Amino acid sequence: MSDTTSPWHLARRAARMNPSVIREILKVTEKPGIISFAGGLPSAKTFPVAEFEAACAKVLKDDAPGALQYAASEGFGPLREQVAAQLQSQAAAAGQSWQVNPAQVLITTGSQQGLDLVAKVLIDAGSKILVESPTYLGAVSAFIPMEPEVLGVASDDEGLDLADLRAKAQDARFFYVLPNFQNPTGRTLSENRRVALSQLAAELNLPLLEDNPYGDLWFDAPPHAPLTARNPDGCIYLGSFSKVLAPGLRLGFLVAPKVVYPKLLQAKQAADLHSPGFNQRMIAEVMKDGFLDRHVPTIRALYKAQRDAMLAALAQHFPDALSQPGQSLTWNRPAGGMFLWARLPQGMSAVDLLPFALAKGVAFVPGAPFYADHGDERTLRLSFVTPSVEEIQRGVAALAAAIKARQPA
Amino acid sequence: MSDTTSPWHLARRAARMNPSVIREILKVTEKPGIISFAGGLPSAKTFPVAEFEAACAKVLKDDAPGALQYAASEGFGPLREQVAAQLQSQAAAAGQSWQVNPAQVLITTGSQQGLDLVAKVLIDAGSKILVESPTYLGAVSAFIPMEPEVLGVASDDEGLDLADLRAKAQDARFFYVLPNFQNPTGRTLSENRRVALSQLAAELNLPLLEDNPYGDLWFDAPPHAPLTARNPDGCIYLGSFSKVLAPGLRLGFLVAPKVVYPKLLQAKQAADLHSPGFNQRMIAEVMKDGFLDRHVPTIRALYKAQRDAMLAALAQHFPDALSQPGQSLTWNRPAGGMFLWARLPQGMSAVDLLPFALAKGVAFVPGAPFYADHGDERTLRLSFVTPSVEEIQRGVAALAAAIKARQPA
Repeated sequence: MSDTTSPWHLARRAARMNPSVIREILKVTEKPGIISFAGGLPSAKTFPVAEFEAACAKVLKDDAPGALQYAASEGFGPLREQVAAQLQSQAAAAGQSWQVNPAQVLITTGSQQGLDLVAKVLIDAGSKILVESPTYLGAVSAFIPMEPEVLGVASDDEGLDLADLRAKAQDARFFYVLPNFQNPTGRTLSENRRVALSQLAAELNLPLLEDNPYGDLWFDAPPHAPLTARNPDGCIYLGSFSKVLAPGLRLGFLVAPKVVYPKLLQAKQAADLHSPGFNQRMIAEVMKDGFLDRHVPTIRALYKAQRDAMLAALAQHFPDALSQPGQSLTWNRPAGGMFLWARLPQGMSAVDLLPFALAKGVAFVPGAPFYADHGDERTLRLSFVTPSVEEIQRGVAALAAAIKARQPA
Repeated sequence: MSDTTSPWHLARRAARMNPSVIREILKVTEKPGIISFAGGLPSAKTFPVAEFEAACAKVLKDDAPGALQYAASEGFGPLREQVAAQLQSQAAAAGQSWQVNPAQVLITTGSQQGLDLVAKVLIDAGSKILVESPTYLGAVSAFIPMEPEVLGVASDDEGLDLADLRAKAQDARFFYVLPNFQNPTGRTLSENRRVALSQLAAELNLPLLEDNPYGDLWFDAPPHAPLTARNPDGCIYLGSFSKVLAPGLRLGFLVAPKVVYPKLLQAKQAADLHSPGFNQRMIAEVMKDGFLDRHVPTIRALYKAQRDAMLAALAQHFPDALSQPGQSLTWNRPAGGMFLWARLPQGMSAVDLLPFALAKGVAFVPGAPFYADHGDERTLRLSFVTPSVEEIQRGVAALAAAIKARQPA
């Protein structure tokens, strides 16, 4: 009887569900003593622990039975109202009127779940979907189980390439776009491109899936108005509390038009009934009285100082970046968020460099895996969020040493 | 421009994702002054609020950065160990050796998410899957988005009909079974049937998906050993903290064999990255030092008293149940859990009765929608968990009055 066949017959989609290359790389980089520019975690210094403590106590004191019981799949009413009001006022501040009805807000178990729900509701096996290239790999992981054909749209420093989008858009179910301080590149979609993208999407009848986890983390000026604010009936908007409060509560939200919302709600109900009501009340409690207006600027200040430290260290260690860009590391200047995007000298590969960088005491994530196709092997992602200013200085020095040692003569 | 077509093209599966009949019925029954036997919610009296308060404070004091940061998709290590140890010791107490390796435990966002993950990993469009009939509708809602063909296996007071299972099992991806105090029937799979089911599943190479949210809520004696304990390589086990601690933290778990676990883990990562680390630590903190061994008996005692009150009230108001079963309401005697299953006199329909019952001040859920096919329209589900003993007595009296008024002469 020991030789019976396995009873398990896996679904076809399971063959495409595999650990991401980047997660595997991150495992290698998690060594003691290594300065990591590799991670994508918010700085734990920014978690408002005292406020969470007070909120836990208050929520349990005020209505423990409500907080601990099963609840509506849509989410906690007051939190949905807070989300709607905040989006509306941010859009107004960016000069765009956006009437956000709380009834169109769905609270999700992290914004990652929003990606899963959208995939279920919009993707059939073989459906074409479009993503920026490079893009957030977790989104691709969420889409893949529904067996789409994923096409990458080329992008540059101002965001996506609209001609490439037009060329690929026919019959696409949606275009997934991170307009602000994108993961992995730190790039922001310019206002001109936003206007053009909105027009093009309307012309092509192409739904946009707008993911905005980093939008509040601006350093110089608030982002331009969301794409969704410009055409709410043609977009789904995804947001997150992970970067402005804490990821460990696993709460995000989406805003969807009336034609799609009921199906996303059904998908949500089937996926986990509802997001934890206790956590939703904690966040609603912390957010009331404008806490984010006081708290988020402290996160911005911290990350901005660290971005500046990284830019300064890069300028110091790679003085030829402007004069001899092919012979030097080059990099962009993210206007917010958590990541900076860099490119190695000609002839070098970030994957090949990584072990030598680790030997010098610094880790990063190679950029090629973030591309839907034709990954640029010279690219790498550098997070400036977790290490201190001093560590950033040492880490960049170590990176420079590794590059110098490996650079073709 | 106002007449443009909607850009949204929904996936084929969306057509099958609809609000459950029962949820719609529950909305009707949620009226002030109505005694509800309709709900499926644990009694809020059983939530260990003081312990949660202390655990929140402790978790944030001990390691707030860890509790609030992104975390491993597998779940919080100590909680996975607690789950493994508890399952192992419960199986041993039931006379069955079950080596549960914490590495095979995956923490899920409620056991509902376990159903979603299993569906993704095991169901292709058109795959045959088997469920008990009647069964938990939330499971069917979780399976449906992967577009299976769902077949019901007939069941009686001892659980499923093995001959019917054998007749339908060919090429089925799995059989979904709730062996203890099933929702909706309150039925328990007898030991004889468990032995026979295990043998049959092995013979047919049929994976079992064992769902056990109610197993700890036994009134008379602990349940027989789980099916998974008898054949861990051929089963996936789903468990929940919702009924022994609280649903509002949205935590459950699954135990899966090595051939399936990595794909379930990938599906989990894509679905919501991980379940809230803060909540996992809260539950791990509350559970340590054997808290459940002291707490769960108080839930059992409460629910048992309410079950007994319902049985007594039914016996009082329907004295002819044994002598003239066709002319009377009849019912079973659940040995645990939250639900009792009843059947109306000949010629009556539970759906038709409901508005008259509501007019008399009592609500229940008609049983027919729980069946995969050929629903028995005389059946109804009565929950004895939320109302007090006094409300149970009044509610059964109201039910009896409604039946008497509507019963064919």
